Amino acid sequence: MHYRKKLEEGALFTDRYQLTMAQLYFRYGFHEKEVQFEHFFREYPNYGSHQAGYCINAGINWFLDWLSQVKFTTADISALKEQKSARGKKLFADDFLRWLKGKSPYDFLTINAISEGRVIHSFEPVNVVQGPLAMCQLVESSLLNKINYQILVATKASRIKEAGRGNVVLEFGLRRAQDFGANAGSRAALIGGADFTSNEGLSHKMGFSAKGTHAHSMVQLFMAEGKGELGAFRAYADIYPEDCLLLVDTINTLESGVPNAIKVFTDLKRKGHTPIGIRLDSGDLAYLCIQSAKMLNEAGFENTSIVLSNQLDELVIWQIITQIGTEASRYGLDADRLIKRLVYGVGTNLVTSKGHSSLDGVYKLTAVRKKSGWVPSIKISETKEKIINPGLKKVWRIYDMKNKAVDDLITLGEEDPRVAKKIILHHPVIASQRREMEKTDISLIEPLLENVLDKGKRKTPGFSIEKARQLREKDLGCLYPGVKRLINPHVYHVSLSEKLWDMKKRLINLKEE
Amino acid sequence: MHYRKKLEEGALFTDRYQLTMAQLYFRYGFHEKEVQFEHFFREYPNYGSHQAGYCINAGINWFLDWLSQVKFTTADISALKEQKSARGKKLFADDFLRWLKGKSPYDFLTINAISEGRVIHSFEPVNVVQGPLAMCQLVESSLLNKINYQILVATKASRIKEAGRGNVVLEFGLRRAQDFGANAGSRAALIGGADFTSNEGLSHKMGFSAKGTHAHSMVQLFMAEGKGELGAFRAYADIYPEDCLLLVDTINTLESGVPNAIKVFTDLKRKGHTPIGIRLDSGDLAYLCIQSAKMLNEAGFENTSIVLSNQLDELVIWQIITQIGTEASRYGLDADRLIKRLVYGVGTNLVTSKGHSSLDGVYKLTAVRKKSGWVPSIKISETKEKIINPGLKKVWRIYDMKNKAVDDLITLGEEDPRVAKKIILHHPVIASQRREMEKTDISLIEPLLENVLDKGKRKTPGFSIEKARQLREKDLGCLYPGVKRLINPHVYHVSLSEKLWDMKKRLINLKEE
Repeated sequence: MHYRKKLEEGALFTDRYQLTMAQLYFRYGFHEKEVQFEHFFREYPNYGSHQAGYCINAGINWFLDWLSQVKFTTADISALKEQKSARGKKLFADDFLRWLKGKSPYDFLTINAISEGRVIHSFEPVNVVQGPLAMCQLVESSLLNKINYQILVATKASRIKEAGRGNVVLEFGLRRAQDFGANAGSRAALIGGADFTSNEGLSHKMGFSAKGTHAHSMVQLFMAEGKGELGAFRAYADIYPEDCLLLVDTINTLESGVPNAIKVFTDLKRKGHTPIGIRLDSGDLAYLCIQSAKMLNEAGFENTSIVLSNQLDELVIWQIITQIGTEASRYGLDADRLIKRLVYGVGTNLVTSKGHSSLDGVYKLTAVRKKSGWVPSIKISETKEKIINPGLKKVWRIYDMKNKAVDDLITLGEEDPRVAKKIILHHPVIASQRREMEKTDISLIEPLLENVLDKGKRKTPGFSIEKARQLREKDLGCLYPGVKRLINPHVYHVSLSEKLWDMKKRLINLKEE
Repeated sequence: MHYRKKLEEGALFTDRYQLTMAQLYFRYGFHEKEVQFEHFFREYPNYGSHQAGYCINAGINWFLDWLSQVKFTTADISALKEQKSARGKKLFADDFLRWLKGKSPYDFLTINAISEGRVIHSFEPVNVVQGPLAMCQLVESSLLNKINYQILVATKASRIKEAGRGNVVLEFGLRRAQDFGANAGSRAALIGGADFTSNEGLSHKMGFSAKGTHAHSMVQLFMAEGKGELGAFRAYADIYPEDCLLLVDTINTLESGVPNAIKVFTDLKRKGHTPIGIRLDSGDLAYLCIQSAKMLNEAGFENTSIVLSNQLDELVIWQIITQIGTEASRYGLDADRLIKRLVYGVGTNLVTSKGHSSLDGVYKLTAVRKKSGWVPSIKISETKEKIINPGLKKVWRIYDMKNKAVDDLITLGEEDPRVAKKIILHHPVIASQRREMEKTDISLIEPLLENVLDKGKRKTPGFSIEKARQLREKDLGCLYPGVKRLINPHVYHVSLSEKLWDMKKRLINLKEE
């Protein structure tokens, strides 16, 4: 096994308090106590003027790949040995460090998770971690770091893909992401809705082909050499005759870029090549798109792609499509045909999830194993919505007779709603709100959590981006359109079973007394 | 030299188009042409309701540390060999890959940069890269990725530090950052205004002590064990008597957390230890802060810290301080004394730069070397503000007789305003706007760019976070308070010299004709 050698990317890629808590548990003999933590999020990304009605899951396999390369190495332990208390004494004792040395949390943890690519909802357990207390605690920060961000980006990518009516989406965000976070962002984008990314290394790692065109600087360079934009385009077509996608806005899109592109495309066509298309990166994209299409069509290039970029997100794409739908016919163009040839290059707003730059995913202790069995744990919050759903649990997705998902039901671990006569769906917070569903109204009750790690044994070796995408498409197909609406989506219900609600109520009363 | 082995973190941590452009330049014999690219940003972070009036520079040494570990390895070249064109032919030719193999851009580039920690402004060159065209192009994506984000975070950290009146700021954002981007974020926070970070590995790498307290889960665990919150606090004080900082909001801050903390602090004091303080992580922080301080004071703990966390940013901190200033005396407390004991724990909103999640830093070709010498290059944009300032340039900071910075002046490379009789400051866009400054009104004209890399030779080996912080404090001290205002800051002027303005005008006219 090749372990991470850089201190800041291995087992010490964590918050200090995880280590001080681990030592405290060690000292009190609690470190090997079996516990359960749950990872879930509370709020769908709320992008300022609009909020998501669902999220797309991503990240668990990426996290596990990393965790499998992590153990407390000699270098890590040496670093911890140097740490001091406020008064200069050793912060970490030798016996604790001896215990920690050489260990990887990977070998001790059992994780049940919802598959990457699937639609997930607020408050339901997405990743459930069981194992010795110290090990569960030591992975909290890295799990949240590696999974929250990927859910955030996969969700944004899905919205962009939906706004673009399923057309090709290219992810370009490396230069605006947070350092190596760009790699996680590209991966999540590929799961959530991007067809390709410009990120060369990550594409290769994931078995994809990277995509790209050229920069303004190439045109500038040829201009400085006295060969002009046309010279730059000719050079590009010469070297990449089968991949000729030209950026047409360095000088003036309609007066220079598109006419020059058409000249080059005409030459390419004569030589038997099929030009790919043009990229528009500034100005009024809807207007330029219509005018460029008109010029391309008149020159006989009705099938070339038009790649749009420059601060795109789901609303901008929606707006561009709407505008083309209204205005194209005025210029003698078929709006639908034009919309179908668009490709969306999305960078900054995808990888930083414009308007909502972090998912509020948390990792909470929900159960502790005692001699008598698992005991639910709870944190009483001053905000009712923030009170944890306690105990060992399962998550089920309920489909109606039209095969649409209508409710995610959280139950106790021992419950199986598939064998119940009718389903009671309790509101997670409001005591008086409950609904019943008859079995005759239900086509399927599907368990969502599956075992992905069993004490160091990976249970899902077959993960691929392609598989995650298939799950995403299937799940999105099972959502009512209202839930997918870009603005003001219909609320999807996440409910508690009667037994879970009763336990939660009992625990809150117990603690509040 | 230890080179990066993971494909996605080495030389292929870049966008595809950099590689296709490099090959095109190679094919046309342009790859070794000497050129200059400039990195600058256009817009100060605009956090929705408020915009920054300055930025804090960060990232160049981090970028150079990475670049020094990067070359096109055998594995990188093999990956590139596999890449295909749209019709399945080899995308990269063997002669190009032979040329690329084993090379590191680091060895070919000369970089002049403004020092990390310094105040920087929009449109001025922050990092200027000179070298062979292909090498300059190949580092574009990684330079933007590694530096834009750090400037963004250092700037936010500086604003938070200013809002908190210089009190201790702790950076806690690892779990909400973008994967390993968390490390770059922690580093930038330390430069910009955070005193410490919770990030264990990064702290160690940077020679800092990581900071932290404990999580709610620790209290929950002791509750599940029947030992309650008090048991958890006692255990913590037992193991960390000199570092006893207690999180008091797991059950109820004023009815349980603070009283229990006081019991534990009283025991600690009896044993000769000085308790550090409490952390408030939910609820009305200003109110809870006043009430907690009152209880702590009455118990004789007037000097313990009160750490505030939970969605803090510069405006929330400002609001909390304002509210304490208004209300503390009503509860018999000295507001100033209370404000002085506050510590700010900032996570999500710092590392994701809440409200403005990416800096719009760009990397533009500004000059090309020909036989006749350097020739300025320009991209004509449809937006006047976006037109590049062309050519080889210098940046100077002008200080008035009160030793306050009043203007950053961009000149041609051969100009030296220090020997000019008077200084002409031209607006960068509006032709009619120019001002003059007499030498008698100027105390200092300071060049800002310095050589940091000379074809693989590092020129600033003495970089340290501490040195960057000193530069930051000095520069912030030289800004008029209006420029530092959190909301609606006074505009700081960045001007062009008459000669640079004339050149820009000439080039635009030339191209527009």
